[in-house]
Amino acid sequence: MKLNIAVLPGDGIGPEIMNQAVAVTQAICNKFGHELSYKTGIVGACAIDQTGDPYPAETHQLCMESDAVLFGAIGSPKYDNDPNAKVRPEQGLLRMRKQLGLYANIRPVTTFPSLIHKSPLRSELVEDADFMCIRELTGGLYFGKPQGRSEDGNTAYDTCIYTREEIERILHLAYKFAGQRKKKVTVVDKANVLATSRLWRQIAQEIAPQYPDIQTDYLFVDNAAMRIIQWPKSFDVLVTENLFGDILTDEASVITGSLGLLPSASIGLHTSLFEPIHGSYPQAAGKDIANPLAMILSAALMFEYGFNLMEEGALIREAVNASLEAGVVTEDIAEGGKAYKLSEVGAWIVNYIN
Amino acid sequence: MKLNIAVLPGDGIGPEIMNQAVAVTQAICNKFGHELSYKTGIVGACAIDQTGDPYPAETHQLCMESDAVLFGAIGSPKYDNDPNAKVRPEQGLLRMRKQLGLYANIRPVTTFPSLIHKSPLRSELVEDADFMCIRELTGGLYFGKPQGRSEDGNTAYDTCIYTREEIERILHLAYKFAGQRKKKVTVVDKANVLATSRLWRQIAQEIAPQYPDIQTDYLFVDNAAMRIIQWPKSFDVLVTENLFGDILTDEASVITGSLGLLPSASIGLHTSLFEPIHGSYPQAAGKDIANPLAMILSAALMFEYGFNLMEEGALIREAVNASLEAGVVTEDIAEGGKAYKLSEVGAWIVNYIN
Ligand SMILES: CC(C)[C@H](C(=O)O)[C@@H](O)C(=O)O
Ligand SMILES: CC(C)[C@H](C(=O)O)[C@@H](O)C(=O)O
Repeated sequence: MKLNIAVLPGDGIGPEIMNQAVAVTQAICNKFGHELSYKTGIVGACAIDQTGDPYPAETHQLCMESDAVLFGAIGSPKYDNDPNAKVRPEQGLLRMRKQLGLYANIRPVTTFPSLIHKSPLRSELVEDADFMCIRELTGGLYFGKPQGRSEDGNTAYDTCIYTREEIERILHLAYKFAGQRKKKVTVVDKANVLATSRLWRQIAQEIAPQYPDIQTDYLFVDNAAMRIIQWPKSFDVLVTENLFGDILTDEASVITGSLGLLPSASIGLHTSLFEPIHGSYPQAAGKDIANPLAMILSAALMFEYGFNLMEEGALIREAVNASLEAGVVTEDIAEGGKAYKLSEVGAWIVNYIN
Repeated sequence: MKLNIAVLPGDGIGPEIMNQAVAVTQAICNKFGHELSYKTGIVGACAIDQTGDPYPAETHQLCMESDAVLFGAIGSPKYDNDPNAKVRPEQGLLRMRKQLGLYANIRPVTTFPSLIHKSPLRSELVEDADFMCIRELTGGLYFGKPQGRSEDGNTAYDTCIYTREEIERILHLAYKFAGQRKKKVTVVDKANVLATSRLWRQIAQEIAPQYPDIQTDYLFVDNAAMRIIQWPKSFDVLVTENLFGDILTDEASVITGSLGLLPSASIGLHTSLFEPIHGSYPQAAGKDIANPLAMILSAALMFEYGFNLMEEGALIREAVNASLEAGVVTEDIAEGGKAYKLSEVGAWIVNYIN
């Protein structure tokens, strides 16, 4: 098979972790006889610095021509805390999501036995937790118009909009995944307050009977925020709108104790995108110390969800687990033990695959 | 002093827990020589059943004439899961907040040593955590217009609006509280995406220098959702907009392991309101088994924030702590030990005060 991918390292630690993910992808392609063709593009703060645009047209072109996008991380301290900055890296990210039609962000929430003691939750609550958050990614308050300020600057407004089509699309995706898993969908909304949430709930209630072998639960977002901590094992597939998903998926990722290991997939109309959940971690940039595993596991998701190559993805996972068991880990995980460099961890995994 | 209060028991366990809070309030007034005058009103599902309106005009009148409102809980299963119900209990709650100008909801997040083992977090993370969430309560996505559906019903929209005045008012309140505490304000927003959040951050950056002895931190709401679990002790006063506050305050309350013990205060333009954080718990209604402590501690907050009667509030707290230490607790806390009835716990506390 020919893998035609776009590689967008982004800012901060992005380039370093991406190097390892590309090396791992190359090793897998060699092993399984796939042809890898990739091109690199700029995005985020580094793209603003070079072109004034956080998501330049050439980068978009590159993504549109790809079958999958590997994405590192974006963001730079120099654009934070400046509410009046005209161009911000995040705008590029949002434009990219919209223009590529990346409507569903999928985050598997899984634990690693060797890291369970790093969870802020009591081990017995989180051990064996295994669920999936599906976040709508191109609608809602992030993109609704009008958004802005009154003329005197003293009133600001954002608009949340959802259409039936957007909601149906992602709910069907949630049921599809639940059918391959533990057969339970939890729809999270705020239907007791918001009109958009009432449309979500109405459509969910229409769709649920079409999947008679799958259980559907409804939770208000505030209750979901509690339940994720109190009883994470009660979830199988959690599906929700953009802003709620932003908050809940970050909350869900932190309970595993392994934020540096969690990848995500964004399913799109034109291509799919795979990226770690963590950010650009500017303090560690260039130091060869960050944890490359979430980025490498994003490549595993790319094989699985992007190309339906399950064995290839499984081998990456196996290699990552082996590195954890062998204690070949970066300083964020090493604790008392030896801390390996980012590049050493990557090389070990490539070597395992070879 | 004359205490002129409105008593709104609401639905579910509301009436039972309210009985105890009123008894405790009466005991305190007797002890300290205050005159208590109170009137009872209906609100929520029971008000819909009786009048068709979840917040009838008479109830509003009662609140407007009061110096403080004690509020139980509202909500009934028969109004949930029906996205098309014309009248819902929550509408009454929102109308009440708006009409009484209850612009700031304050939730102290405190732990109780005897209950720390019930926290879903590892004890060392949450022990001695002590912060305060201040949630804007009458603006944002909850109240912005337009809200509704397109004519064909297939598109829904909500509007988030904030004005400078609304934001300044609550930020000053946050700094006021921080000045009496650990001198740190954390402003939570999503300024990298939302126009309303950028106005929040801009105004916070204007106001912060007016309080040179108080440290100001800024957190994106998704990061805040992580930090509350990872490092709750890093907060002193967290202040945020309505919807973020809804989600984060529920998350924050659950990490203490003592949801049944947490009260809240809503500071208003016309009066102030005091209520437990937990809901109406319909399954337990009428069984004399629910935990009355959050409601009783709401009465303590009423003395402190509503009437500036600190000793009176402190004595209620002391009595509650004594009941916990004596093991006079309801079944949610009792575990292996003896479970007391709701009314027995209330009577024990009244007796302690007398
Ligand atoms: C950077 C920001 C715009 C983005 C979001 O809110 O979607 C991030 O938090 C994420 O979750 O990918
Ligand atoms: C019942 C609901 C409308 C309400 C809210 O969202 O404000 C509740 O969750 C709360 O936090 O008091």
